[in-house]
Amino acid sequence: MPYVHLTTTCFANSLGGDGLDRTYFELMLDRLRAPLKDLQAIQQDGKAALFGLPAQRDDLAALAPVAEAFRANFDDVIVLATGGSSLGGRALVALAGPGYGAAAPTPRLHFLDNVDPHNFDALLGGLNLDRTGFLVISKSGRTAETLAQFLVSLDAVKVAAGEFAVAEHFTIITEPADNPLRRLADANDIQVLDHEPEIGGRYAALSVVGLLPAMIAGVDVVRVREGASEVLEALSRSEGPDASEPAIGAAISVGLARERDVGVTVMMPYADRLADFALWFRQLWAESLGKGGNGTTPVQALGTVDQHSQLQLYLDGPCDKMFTLIFVAGDGVGRRILPEGADDGELSYLAGHTLGDLMEAEQQATAKSLVKSNRPTRIFRLKALDERALGGLMMHFMLETILAAALLGVDPFDQPAVENGKALARDALAASGKGSS
Amino acid sequence: MPYVHLTTTCFANSLGGDGLDRTYFELMLDRLRAPLKDLQAIQQDGKAALFGLPAQRDDLAALAPVAEAFRANFDDVIVLATGGSSLGGRALVALAGPGYGAAAPTPRLHFLDNVDPHNFDALLGGLNLDRTGFLVISKSGRTAETLAQFLVSLDAVKVAAGEFAVAEHFTIITEPADNPLRRLADANDIQVLDHEPEIGGRYAALSVVGLLPAMIAGVDVVRVREGASEVLEALSRSEGPDASEPAIGAAISVGLARERDVGVTVMMPYADRLADFALWFRQLWAESLGKGGNGTTPVQALGTVDQHSQLQLYLDGPCDKMFTLIFVAGDGVGRRILPEGADDGELSYLAGHTLGDLMEAEQQATAKSLVKSNRPTRIFRLKALDERALGGLMMHFMLETILAAALLGVDPFDQPAVENGKALARDALAASGKGSS
Repeated sequence: MPYVHLTTTCFANSLGGDGLDRTYFELMLDRLRAPLKDLQAIQQDGKAALFGLPAQRDDLAALAPVAEAFRANFDDVIVLATGGSSLGGRALVALAGPGYGAAAPTPRLHFLDNVDPHNFDALLGGLNLDRTGFLVISKSGRTAETLAQFLVSLDAVKVAAGEFAVAEHFTIITEPADNPLRRLADANDIQVLDHEPEIGGRYAALSVVGLLPAMIAGVDVVRVREGASEVLEALSRSEGPDASEPAIGAAISVGLARERDVGVTVMMPYADRLADFALWFRQLWAESLGKGGNGTTPVQALGTVDQHSQLQLYLDGPCDKMFTLIFVAGDGVGRRILPEGADDGELSYLAGHTLGDLMEAEQQATAKSLVKSNRPTRIFRLKALDERALGGLMMHFMLETILAAALLGVDPFDQPAVENGKALARDALAASGKGSS
Repeated sequence: MPYVHLTTTCFANSLGGDGLDRTYFELMLDRLRAPLKDLQAIQQDGKAALFGLPAQRDDLAALAPVAEAFRANFDDVIVLATGGSSLGGRALVALAGPGYGAAAPTPRLHFLDNVDPHNFDALLGGLNLDRTGFLVISKSGRTAETLAQFLVSLDAVKVAAGEFAVAEHFTIITEPADNPLRRLADANDIQVLDHEPEIGGRYAALSVVGLLPAMIAGVDVVRVREGASEVLEALSRSEGPDASEPAIGAAISVGLARERDVGVTVMMPYADRLADFALWFRQLWAESLGKGGNGTTPVQALGTVDQHSQLQLYLDGPCDKMFTLIFVAGDGVGRRILPEGADDGELSYLAGHTLGDLMEAEQQATAKSLVKSNRPTRIFRLKALDERALGGLMMHFMLETILAAALLGVDPFDQPAVENGKALARDALAASGKGSS
């Protein structure tokens, strides 16, 4: 497995009245027996697109030249997408690291997931559009924000590089069914890659939606899928919910919510490169479970930064949160802070240590403090923060979310409440005065 | 006032059983009568450092040459700080906009608030350290993360630019009392600016802590303080809590938490440049109120992005959240999406509109959807997103937080629970094997 589940301190025997009662936990696990078997059967029969992805390789071979063209032709790549079409790719691309100045890898990827006109103008105005590629992703092909961004960008590229250059600058990912985005692609001779119709945005990180941006950034996507495969294989081997990490996680989470009113779930990795993963999880959890009054509120946090922002609330505020900490081994990693033996009295605790040692010590201290304050806490430890680990984490949390949905009795794959808002926005725009600029 | 408070839809008359009862709200307001008078008296006597900042100008004159030197000498400026020492500056610097490629303003500011060794190495390794300045901020001068970052950076600059260059590359902000950071500054001939000893990090955005980074980025800090002054003046004119925006906000927030179990407060601006402001608010609210089981969980969100991530949960999940939306006028702003009259059938709703029009329509649709789903919602509208507006918002939410603390009976200025964790981390590091790298 690409991660080690270190400890779970969520039960009444450790946390007293703030912890989950073992009997209730067993009840939750028991209710997961059938859903787990269902998942195992679906996995076995090989028909579910989501579970088929990790083992797939031929699609990657087909994507390789597309990614290669982006890498060869462009200094900057703008991904026009929002929500699930954006967050999986962002989380994977983050693995390539930030890169600064001369050490920044090219092409630079920019995920433009908002329609803020100010930022959009700054981006289109600041880049050399001759050397900028666009990847446009919308499953339905009807996302108003992405369509608007695409139309504006199309116009900007036509002006900068000429009418006939657009086909080279744009690639579109959308589902096979007819839709406005696909029609625009056809009208402009733009290459279209099919979005797997069976997989919704927030479960699409391991498909072309997440993997093409990752490939453009130089991330090893085979290893991402291998990590996901390991977690899937562990699922298929599980003899019952009590032997399945995702099932245990779902049982604890739903159990704490129902028995202890724990309405907030904090995802707090200790690594900058996992900040976007936490954002990805935040959407997955919220949009899959927040239905009919169900669901808990996912909160993304980041160590060590948020020790100086949120930890006071976490330790001494209401006991309404569970914490998932993701640790990355830090011992000896990074630059030395002070030479061995250096001693400014108060600073001697830093002597002989690296930044990674400090990160490691902070991780331990936070975990201890949370448990001492009776806060339900579980810790995952990554052997290394690499493609395999991230692919594994993604599959783990997709499974945990699907199993939590089974306990709550909600459909993890739809998002009925937001559809109405989308229609409202279109209506408001259609009804408002035109030609206002 | 630099903002218009558009609507508050948080009461039982609009939201039914999910809304706040008017009588309870009046009770909360009544309990704010004395705290509000206290704040007004403190403001009048001019002795409280926090309230004196907005009208101050002489300190800015003293800072101008420091900022100018940073701007003249460096292409990149790294701010080494965490928590309150970082978030106010980040929020203000964001006003200067992101800037991309050729249009990116210099110096580029990098807020390094984490000790992730991977990111730190990438930054130090990627920049030309000869042209990189460092601003190191820690009020106590004892923040382990900031000290460690500083020591590592000091070493890197010595190697890159020579032992005697460090004095030109570093500026330190710390309180006047003796501390390890100040001693290191003295030993290296580094300029030290005093951190106002009476003002804690999360209330320090309008002091040198937030304003020096802002000045380096070219933000008009006089206008920031003017915006804050307007909100302070409105406070002093308020004849009672029912006539004070911050008091009304505090009464609604605490009232909803106590009467309706609303444990999450969502801050959702519709502007990329306010994303860091929401992070700043998140710390202010969490660390000031999260004590003795009190406080609600602040969640930062961003429109329109999070409509495609969190809105499903917000509309159809548990009714345990209140929403503060910050709208920025968008009508006619930004690039045209489609020419007037363009009509691809399904896309005609976009014709004649700009990206700003779309943002505007999305804001309206989200507000309508939330209220229709009986979610407590209030809307601030900015006449313009500029320095004055941001200064005003910052002062508003500092006052609202202080008044909420009065209702909860907690001290808004301390953070007792995290001190223990800091000691734990130091002990863990001191006790762990040395020379591990």
